[in-house]
Order: sequence, then structure tokens, then C-alpha cells
Amino acid sequence: MAQGLDEFELISRYFAPLARDTPGALGLTDDAAVVRPDDGYELVISADALVSGVHFSGPGFATPTDPADIARRALRSNLSDLAAMGATPLGYTLTLQMPDDTDEAWLAAFADGLMRDQQEFGIGLLGGDTTRTPGPLTLSINVFGQVSENKAIIRSGAQLSDDVYVSGTIGDSVLGLALENGDFPGVNDADRRELLARYRCPQPRLGVGQRLVSRAHAAADVSDGLVADLGHICQASQIAADIKLSAVPVSSAALRVVTDNQPLKLSLLTGGEDFELVFTAPESARAFVQEVARDTVVPITRIGRMVAHRDAGPKVAVLDDAGNRLEVGDGGYRHFRESQPR
Amino acid sequence: MAQGLDEFELISRYFAPLARDTPGALGLTDDAAVVRPDDGYELVISADALVSGVHFSGPGFATPTDPADIARRALRSNLSDLAAMGATPLGYTLTLQMPDDTDEAWLAAFADGLMRDQQEFGIGLLGGDTTRTPGPLTLSINVFGQVSENKAIIRSGAQLSDDVYVSGTIGDSVLGLALENGDFPGVNDADRRELLARYRCPQPRLGVGQRLVSRAHAAADVSDGLVADLGHICQASQIAADIKLSAVPVSSAALRVVTDNQPLKLSLLTGGEDFELVFTAPESARAFVQEVARDTVVPITRIGRMVAHRDAGPKVAVLDDAGNRLEVGDGGYRHFRESQPR
Repeated sequence: MAQGLDEFELISRYFAPLARDTPGALGLTDDAAVVRPDDGYELVISADALVSGVHFSGPGFATPTDPADIARRALRSNLSDLAAMGATPLGYTLTLQMPDDTDEAWLAAFADGLMRDQQEFGIGLLGGDTTRTPGPLTLSINVFGQVSENKAIIRSGAQLSDDVYVSGTIGDSVLGLALENGDFPGVNDADRRELLARYRCPQPRLGVGQRLVSRAHAAADVSDGLVADLGHICQASQIAADIKLSAVPVSSAALRVVTDNQPLKLSLLTGGEDFELVFTAPESARAFVQEVARDTVVPITRIGRMVAHRDAGPKVAVLDDAGNRLEVGDGGYRHFRESQPR
Repeated sequence: MAQGLDEFELISRYFAPLARDTPGALGLTDDAAVVRPDDGYELVISADALVSGVHFSGPGFATPTDPADIARRALRSNLSDLAAMGATPLGYTLTLQMPDDTDEAWLAAFADGLMRDQQEFGIGLLGGDTTRTPGPLTLSINVFGQVSENKAIIRSGAQLSDDVYVSGTIGDSVLGLALENGDFPGVNDADRRELLARYRCPQPRLGVGQRLVSRAHAAADVSDGLVADLGHICQASQIAADIKLSAVPVSSAALRVVTDNQPLKLSLLTGGEDFELVFTAPESARAFVQEVARDTVVPITRIGRMVAHRDAGPKVAVLDDAGNRLEVGDGGYRHFRESQPR
């Protein structure tokens, strides 16, 4: 527990204000919270945990992560899961395990980050639990949303000949993480700011996901990496995907970093935490998808199609412009670093 | 992460089986889970976290807590919150943060404890997240239930002259904890077994809570201690409560431990974690409450009434048979230990 504060003071000072306008939170004074989806809607739930020293640098680290960024990344990665299913967010619960030396300044900044995102996404705190821990600061968030009954976009609906699309740009986040870790010292200030912002404060594509309900056949959010997450769609749908490397949208800032280094560009596809949406839709939906991009002001790019799976199984193939299959690594940040020029 | 297992192996081996029969869990392969309350019902959510070294002794401790008991206590304390609102449980999410040296035997026993309770309470795993931690094993559970719209029993509904009731017996759990810590070495084997079982494997009073919907005015589960939790009802309802010490139900096993030591008996009322229900209902409901006790085979005892609050504010007064107010401590296990004879 934070220095000098008991659990009740802590809740009333930092967490009750986050629940003040949440219907069903009952002021955090009851045994549980109540949530009612609208008539004809069902509830969608996404759960995630973040640990200091694993996912961020908490209090006590030499260069601690901004507590507001921790709050935002925790909320937004879950909101991104809701976006992938086409859901509209309603609220969240939070359990927070704090070392005894957590100070009030940290808590105040963390709660402020939550409050700002609550306002941005129209959600509120529903309930939770705070406890002390002899270990690192740890938080666990469940975010709740709603979607029309039986309309959630799931991973297993992809069909043969579907187009494959991705929102936004891919690879900025892993480059931002690399910059945070001191890689690419030559990057100019504007690009650095842009890539770091993409890593620190991802944008869940809720508007895009909501519009895709009933039109997309399958969707996932890009958290493990484009190839891995499209691979999850392949696995769940028992069908393969071919995507073209040159079609994958990359920001100008990222392009200036990877230049014409093909292994490095390929590794952007496995870097993870883009929190963009990858989805499949029939060819008949092409005009509709462009309309969604226009209305939501989020670029949506067609990068490939779903194909029958050959001997390789229901997997993703990344192709060059001549149609040759390119070797992609296992994904993740470690692989990304190994792809960098020495 | 557990030794030698990656996250996907871990999920498919230990957690996917827990979600196999859960509608809406989508085999744990999707971005989020889907839950639909029945028509006319709303969802109730309770969240709790447990930390090794604070709430139990995890892997690595000299006398580790049985992993199945950890699983059960985590689920049941949340189910007890649902019981207090009159809800019927549907499912739960779990986030688990594991030290690198967590072994598979621990995980297997933990998952087995979850599975047994899933079967007992008719619930299933909906989703979650597993990550590694450099700190102690930590778990966070959200349990979901449903209750008829606007019928959840909340803490703020108590009225003047309501009777105050409590289910089961009070104080067994804190005595079980004391026995676990080596106190009261003279207790006989049968009593020891009974009290330890009450501490290790609490019984959420779901059947009682569900029957009380529309009849009880206010309810809470006894987690912080009878006096504290009835105090929460007082605070939320802005009304006071008088309860009679001699009316508070205590098990024969507990009576043999506390004998005629009044401070020790009083401290049972502040010990916590009984996971019984304390509730208020109008005098007109007396016959109905006895019918509930008979039907659910759970004793329910009338222990006092709600009264106008005097200078002391909306608080609980514990009275002796002559109507004199008794001094009760702050509650919690530390206070309990201080009440023991040296």
C-alpha cells in the first residue's frame, strides 16, 4: 500500500473519482458492480496484466515509465481487443498491487492518466481491488464493451479469397521501443517523437472495428505482430494468407529508419504492439472498406488475400513483388533487434 | 512463465481445458470473450487480487499453501461478493503473474482446484492473461454473475427498524487462520479440522443471496469482519445498527476455543473472511427468512436491528445482554491476536 495511506483513503482519494460517473459502479462502496448491456447487445470482456520490470519501469527504476503512459497502455491494449471484435467500450475494473514505497505522486499521475483516457473513450471505472505486494508494482485490467448479439467479429470467420486489410501503419511501435532503448541514434527529432508516441500511446481502432461488424469476416488486433496475429486468424479459420511485403503500410518516419534494408522492414511485420486491426473481408466489400477509412480518417490498406493452405498449413506467407516467399523470423522484439544492421 | 513452457503451451495445457465448456470463451483463442446475460438480467462483476507472501504462501515458501486452496479462496471470495448482491454466477477471467521458477506441478494443482470449483458452482473460465514476474506469484480474478434488472441487493437500502441477520457462524475462519499460525495448540483434532476447513475453503452463500432478492433491504458479505461489513451497510444507508453479542452465532468448535473469554469472543466479530452474508430485512419478512434458512439448509440468525444513529454516527454498536455497549477493536487478524490470552 502507498506510504501513509490505508486502503480506504487510497480508494476515496484516487479511485472513487474515477468511478463517480460510472453507472453501476455504486461509488466503489458495494460488493460488486452492475453492468447492463443495451437490449439486443452482449458483453465483450478483455483482460490483461502488466508488471513493472517486465512491461514497464515502475517506481524505483532509474528511468521510470511515466505513470500516465502505463495507465494508458494498459487501458488501450484492452480497448484494442474490443476494437477487434467490433465492440463499443463501457467500463473497466482494475486490480493494483503496490509495493510499500509507492508514493502518492506516482498514484496521482497514474490516476490522472486513467481519467484522461476515460474521458477520451467514454468509459469509467467499475470496481477493483488494491493490495500491497512485496514484489514489483503489478496491475490487471478487465475492459468491458458491448456488441450486437451474435455480431462480434471473431478470428475464425475468414474465407477463401477474402481480401486481407490492415489499419494505420505497421512497425512504428517496435521502432519506438528500439528508440526508447537507445537504438538508431541518428534518427531526427520529429521522427523520434512520432515513433515514440506510437509506442507509448497506442490508438485503439474502435471506430474502424465498430463499422466492420457484419461486413468483415474475421479480425484481430496487432499485438503480437502482424504476421503472428494474421496467423491466429489463419489458425482459427483453418485457411492460409498471402501478403505482399511492399503493400504493408509503413509510416514515412519508419521508412526513413529502415531505408531499403529488407530484413529490417520484414521484421516490422513481426515486431508487435501496433494495436492496429488486421481483418479479412470479401471482395464485394472493397468500396465499403474505403468508405470506412474515409469516415474514420484511419488509413486502411489491402495487403493480401486468404488462400487455400498448401503443405505449410494454415499460415501466413510474406511475398516479394515477384511472388517469391520471404523468410520471416519468429517475431517479437528480440528478433527485431537481431535484424538490425550492426 | 513456468519452467520450459511458453505462453501458448501453458494456455493449451492448463487453461484451455477450463474454458472448454464456457459459452463465449471462444476457446481462449480470440481477442476477448463474449457474455450475454439472460433477457431481463444484468451483469454483476466482482474483482480481487491475491499475492503470494501477503494472502497465501506461494511456490518457494517453506510451507506453501495448497495451490488448489489458493484457487478456491480466490474464486470463492469473489463468488461471495456475488452472493451478497443476490446474483447467480456465470464465469470468470484470470490473470496470473508467475515467477520463472513456477513448476508445472504447482500449475497443475492450481488448475485442478479451479476445475473442481467450476464444477461445483457451474461456472467456466472466460479469458485472461499469463505473464512472468520478477516478484511473487500474483493472481487477479474477475467473477461475473447475473441478477434481475434493478434487483441487485446493495448496501445502501437498510431502513429504520429492519432486523439484522447473519448466515452460518461467525469467527471460524479467523480461528482457522490462528490455528494455521500455530496458536491454540490445545484444540482437539476434530475442532482443528473443522476450523481450518472453514478458513481454507469458505462457502459462498449463493443460494441464500439469490432467495433474498426483493426481500432483503441491504446485504454485504462478511469479508472484513461482521462489525466492519455491517458498518459498511450503516455507512451506505446512513443509519446505525445495534447487535447483541450473545445472539451472534458461533460454532461449537469455536465456542470450545473462546470459552467464556468475552474479549476473545468479541474479536471473532472483527476477524474477517467468514464469507457469510449479513443482511437487513423488515420485520414482516421474519417467516420468509426462516423459510430461506430451511430451504437452503444454511442457518440464518437474527442478531439485532437497524436504529436511528445517535451522536456516534451511522455505526455498529455491540451490546451485552443488559444493553450495555461493548468495546470492539479495529478489527482484523492483528487485533484478534492481541485479544488472545497470553
